[in-house]
Amino acid sequence: MFMDETTLPDYARGAAILGAGGGGSTRVGLLAALQAVEEFGPVEVISVDDLPDDALVLPAAGLGSPDITLEKLGNPEQGVWMRTAMEKELGRPAHALMASEVGGSNALTPIVWAAHTGLPLLDADGMGRAFPEVQMVTMHLKGIPATPTALVDERGHQMIFRDMDARWLERSARAVAVAFGGFACTVDHPFTGAQARDCTIPGSVSRALHIGRVISETTHDRVATVMDRLGGHVLITGKISDVERRTVDGFVRGNVLIDGVGEDRGRLVRVEIQNENLAVLEDGRVLASVPDIMTMLDSQTSDVIFTEELRYGQRVTLVALPSPDVWRTDAGLELVGPRAFGYDFDYTPVEELLAQREGGSA
Amino acid sequence: MFMDETTLPDYARGAAILGAGGGGSTRVGLLAALQAVEEFGPVEVISVDDLPDDALVLPAAGLGSPDITLEKLGNPEQGVWMRTAMEKELGRPAHALMASEVGGSNALTPIVWAAHTGLPLLDADGMGRAFPEVQMVTMHLKGIPATPTALVDERGHQMIFRDMDARWLERSARAVAVAFGGFACTVDHPFTGAQARDCTIPGSVSRALHIGRVISETTHDRVATVMDRLGGHVLITGKISDVERRTVDGFVRGNVLIDGVGEDRGRLVRVEIQNENLAVLEDGRVLASVPDIMTMLDSQTSDVIFTEELRYGQRVTLVALPSPDVWRTDAGLELVGPRAFGYDFDYTPVEELLAQREGGSA
Repeated sequence: MFMDETTLPDYARGAAILGAGGGGSTRVGLLAALQAVEEFGPVEVISVDDLPDDALVLPAAGLGSPDITLEKLGNPEQGVWMRTAMEKELGRPAHALMASEVGGSNALTPIVWAAHTGLPLLDADGMGRAFPEVQMVTMHLKGIPATPTALVDERGHQMIFRDMDARWLERSARAVAVAFGGFACTVDHPFTGAQARDCTIPGSVSRALHIGRVISETTHDRVATVMDRLGGHVLITGKISDVERRTVDGFVRGNVLIDGVGEDRGRLVRVEIQNENLAVLEDGRVLASVPDIMTMLDSQTSDVIFTEELRYGQRVTLVALPSPDVWRTDAGLELVGPRAFGYDFDYTPVEELLAQREGGSA
Repeated sequence: MFMDETTLPDYARGAAILGAGGGGSTRVGLLAALQAVEEFGPVEVISVDDLPDDALVLPAAGLGSPDITLEKLGNPEQGVWMRTAMEKELGRPAHALMASEVGGSNALTPIVWAAHTGLPLLDADGMGRAFPEVQMVTMHLKGIPATPTALVDERGHQMIFRDMDARWLERSARAVAVAFGGFACTVDHPFTGAQARDCTIPGSVSRALHIGRVISETTHDRVATVMDRLGGHVLITGKISDVERRTVDGFVRGNVLIDGVGEDRGRLVRVEIQNENLAVLEDGRVLASVPDIMTMLDSQTSDVIFTEELRYGQRVTLVALPSPDVWRTDAGLELVGPRAFGYDFDYTPVEELLAQREGGSA
């Protein structure tokens, strides 16, 4: 499989859905990826099964507040700088890059870096969606050390982190990203081909591409049809009646109110945000929560509306896709479930919550 | 010259004076240094003239808010970690350590690190006193690059900074120090024997030791006699009537009011602080300012009172020592003069300000 001008737009559509509202706008990322493959040629996407056991894989992502990336563009050489730094640190050549998160612009920027480094991209990721913090990756769940980590900014500033666990990396790398102007790029949790199948979510890139293709192919009753084909759910159709959003400690935090319209008239739901959409609440009850994937769509165009684009008055359809299975385990929920984000409730899968709700209102 | 249990107490006394109120209490640093030389033997202090041209010198210091170091003790292995990281980074062995600043506890902790690494300490420093920020060193003034830099915390977390100028290093290393709990240790601005004479203040360690010996030898009319012998000045003798002090962005900031007593009755001066004492103001006029060295002494014991120890009601004598000559140049003042700290006035040497004041009041 290759990422080129024919596959990238669908991949970006899928990545936008999996971004759960965060991970930065994929529009900027898509433009950068299209330019990179035009300049350097298509990027090969390889399967975890193609990796030799000792192959070094570098998971890469942007780190910071996604609203800042709308104005602060990266430097395409950042991928080259991170690769060089990690190869020097580990004393051996890299075999492939991987997108640490397949959601939002962090699904696209690694295409730019793969094109510039000449490395293939692994058909896998560490989230199966987007999450806001460094330790929220399957590599951490599976015991892969967070360091060595390379961090670079767009000016060429470089840092190496050593002997640090994922939560300390999150603290210190986040602080540096803020000091660098709110955004930086990292390679962290490097792993080998032998570890790849267990420590990643294999097939994430293919899945994003598949989601994008389903969207592209669907022309009638688009949102409902797409959710049906993907096993997703429509949570509410409505109008945004309030947006509270601020950039704090390197994150976008806030919440959004949606007033139901049409069949949903009279309903009011609140979406809570830390870069990504974390939870949807209605009448004091949870309608959906992390790790399930809650994404806001423009009711007219079905385009994803990212956190930083939310505005009063927008007509939106809020949808939810089930989380990857790995996050629905006890260990997974400890890392990325509601309590990991400070909520005082346990996770219930979105399909069960919806069934309860229908049962209750029947 | 050696640092051992006979020289260290005097060295610490001198370093306390040169700390300008900041750099952390030397009492904690002295205890750690005494323990280290007891365990590993005396630390040799070598002259810049003893250095081979290609000798690698590692300037080391703590970075953060000095009040935090009173409770958050370092790990003596930090010196070993920084040395190992810098030798790996630069691909050659270190010849000596240097205290980046000879003022306050940062004059003492490098003794601990020298003892643990077995490296000698250079009789020089980068400030001739204490200053609060990373770029405020003679190495930066003389064009030595700030990076590579090694930063470690007491847990063993390690970071390498590359391709960054001193001001970006200050921003990002400060942010990391805050994320690590308010304090970290760094080796930055590494230089060679050939550069040592020009890029440091040679003889700083000897000078601190000399100051301490003068204090030790003086028994009568101590403060006045010591200032006389060292070419310093008494600015005011009084009582602290107000202390405002807070920890902000990894610094201690604040100001202190001193009400004159005895011959100084009726006078009121304000001391402004960013870790170190930055300026002394009286009746809207400057009485002394950076880079001159303003230090608060206990009027009874002549002991230095550090910023974090200031309390309402203390009887204090505020003294000033002239700045090292290198900071009184145009380039030096641009880096560490009043305007570098945000003040809207030019530097006048403390001896001229005092002469003007006496002329005005005569």
